[in-house]
Amino acid sequence: MSRDVVVLGVGMTRFGKMPERAPEDLGHEAIRAAIRDAGIDRRKIQAAFVGSVYLPFGIGQRILKDLGLTGIPVINVENSCASGGTAAREAYAWIKAELCDVALILGVESLSRSFSSGMIPLDLDDLAPAMGLVMPAAYALAARRHMEEYGTTPEQFALVTVKSRSNARHNPYAYFRQQLTLNEVLASRMVADPITKYQCTINADGAAAAILCSEKVARQYTNHPVSIVASAMGSGKLRDRIGDLEDTAARIAREAYEAAGIGPEDIDACELHDAFSVGEVLYCESLGLCPEGEGGRYTQAGHFNINGEKAAVNTSGGLLSRGHPLGATGIAQLAELVWQLRGEAAGRQVDQCRVALQHNSGGGVFDIQTNACVVQILMRE
Amino acid sequence: MSRDVVVLGVGMTRFGKMPERAPEDLGHEAIRAAIRDAGIDRRKIQAAFVGSVYLPFGIGQRILKDLGLTGIPVINVENSCASGGTAAREAYAWIKAELCDVALILGVESLSRSFSSGMIPLDLDDLAPAMGLVMPAAYALAARRHMEEYGTTPEQFALVTVKSRSNARHNPYAYFRQQLTLNEVLASRMVADPITKYQCTINADGAAAAILCSEKVARQYTNHPVSIVASAMGSGKLRDRIGDLEDTAARIAREAYEAAGIGPEDIDACELHDAFSVGEVLYCESLGLCPEGEGGRYTQAGHFNINGEKAAVNTSGGLLSRGHPLGATGIAQLAELVWQLRGEAAGRQVDQCRVALQHNSGGGVFDIQTNACVVQILMRE
Repeated sequence: MSRDVVVLGVGMTRFGKMPERAPEDLGHEAIRAAIRDAGIDRRKIQAAFVGSVYLPFGIGQRILKDLGLTGIPVINVENSCASGGTAAREAYAWIKAELCDVALILGVESLSRSFSSGMIPLDLDDLAPAMGLVMPAAYALAARRHMEEYGTTPEQFALVTVKSRSNARHNPYAYFRQQLTLNEVLASRMVADPITKYQCTINADGAAAAILCSEKVARQYTNHPVSIVASAMGSGKLRDRIGDLEDTAARIAREAYEAAGIGPEDIDACELHDAFSVGEVLYCESLGLCPEGEGGRYTQAGHFNINGEKAAVNTSGGLLSRGHPLGATGIAQLAELVWQLRGEAAGRQVDQCRVALQHNSGGGVFDIQTNACVVQILMRE
Repeated sequence: MSRDVVVLGVGMTRFGKMPERAPEDLGHEAIRAAIRDAGIDRRKIQAAFVGSVYLPFGIGQRILKDLGLTGIPVINVENSCASGGTAAREAYAWIKAELCDVALILGVESLSRSFSSGMIPLDLDDLAPAMGLVMPAAYALAARRHMEEYGTTPEQFALVTVKSRSNARHNPYAYFRQQLTLNEVLASRMVADPITKYQCTINADGAAAAILCSEKVARQYTNHPVSIVASAMGSGKLRDRIGDLEDTAARIAREAYEAAGIGPEDIDACELHDAFSVGEVLYCESLGLCPEGEGGRYTQAGHFNINGEKAAVNTSGGLLSRGHPLGATGIAQLAELVWQLRGEAAGRQVDQCRVALQHNSGGGVFDIQTNACVVQILMRE
């Protein structure tokens, strides 16, 4: 199979707390932006894949209906926080299988509305009683081990957020765009030692969309298509429950690198799943962007900064600053990488950005097992 | 693309009201049965697709974990009552795209548990206040028009249920296996004239699973593989809202027939989405199993009976008698057709069954638009 899959256009809403906006409204904005960006007639869209976690059944069809996108196959997918990446992967499969030539992918979530019942409050201060702090606690355990084994410091973890906010200042779609100092990050409320409040992503509302197509179709619209040159996916293996979050990412990333015929040293920009600062450090290692145990020190040295020594990590601000409307995150990652590869990322642009990697991970809150991990590598001609 | 997709094994639980059984338990039984039926080592499974409507996020991963099926990509899909058919379609896409060679599909629902809050009671007597009778009313309107236009009678609709129960007597997996007389069907409580209670499917709990694989892999296990020779999918078009249910099925079925290079006259066994008796009459016409307007008369003449003049329709008892655990239905349909094609359907076996058609439809309750329609054609070598 050598049929390449191209990301022809991307679009998204700003992420944030927008209880006044219905998911349909958010979805429409992102889809319209992606279609406009692709420069394609919406009637060319032959299938749609919609990722969300908490929206009610039939959400994709409901959103598409008002745009006149009816008649086509619409598939709603749910894979926890990797629902967006999964939607992309499904479109990729259909195009590879020649079941369609042009597909729309949409990730959308309205946590303000889904949780207005108070099930999971948006404010982290209320998180503990609602969620039992399962995810922060899991990452905190991993952080503690990392500190013990490799001498990583709380400051190094906190610097992830400092970099994140610094990048997000230049991302008009990010929820949080105010620079934070190291002291501010460290001094924010302790959630699960060593993870402070500003080292946790924030639930948000928002949508992101993209138009994926076959290379043949893409040639009609652009001479420099951005292609998904490798797409790999898996879930956590049962045997490595506690260390699962890192190992799964490493395994899936290896698959992706092999399929693309490149290595981590070739990555110019990387959007990875930094739901917590600790996650970024761990995943930088899992994805091979630095040696094992060096994630904290590399962060501190600024190697993952825009135009640092290594891959620029989370130039968008990542989940930490862009916010995390679960289903939308995986597609927002794709959007950022497409902008980087096209040289359209303005104040946060990586110089000579030619190869990019997406890592989208969905964890099970109940058993700390990775429900889905999607790693995709993108290149521009 | 000429890579055939084979249904190597199928399995299901009995459908029914089983509040004492967790969805995990139902899923395990169906998966184990499908793996056993396929005769394949479970470690050969490379991806899993799980369809359900009302189960919580991460349900597929949760079910598979206890069977040791971890590490592989797991994708949860939701497409209303066509969630099972959609899961099958996704596995089909991955195998076609060579993203995997062996896939597990599972449809599962536990409406007893999902609705123990009373949101949608299992007993139809309580349906009206909870659901506003939207779906029965939609079908009743279609029935009334059919009666007006084609002279179809309430008795002809009711005979669909009589045939359904007659078939289900021989299906050990069916919820309702007691024969009903025409008078009993007509005399049951009126839900939405002319649809009486026994002409409505019943929400149920249950699971169905299948192992899909490439033709190449299938050759290692069987000399007579059952293949999906055509798979078509779409959603309802906005322009034909009221007549939507029929038109969409007809459009998608035409695609499937064309892809398979056969016509409706070639179908020996058909499992179609008879959520209501009226639905079966309408869909028989949409799928081309009889001329438009003749569905009622053909039913009355016994043409859709097992070994009748035309395709045997819903030999399993269909949704009307097997019951309807939303996500599981589409895969239960596949299971029935595989059994028919293999000659393993015992008391309900269709003679010389060589070509079979599945029609799985998911309607939007809120706007009477088809969220998803999947039509697949199966043949055995």
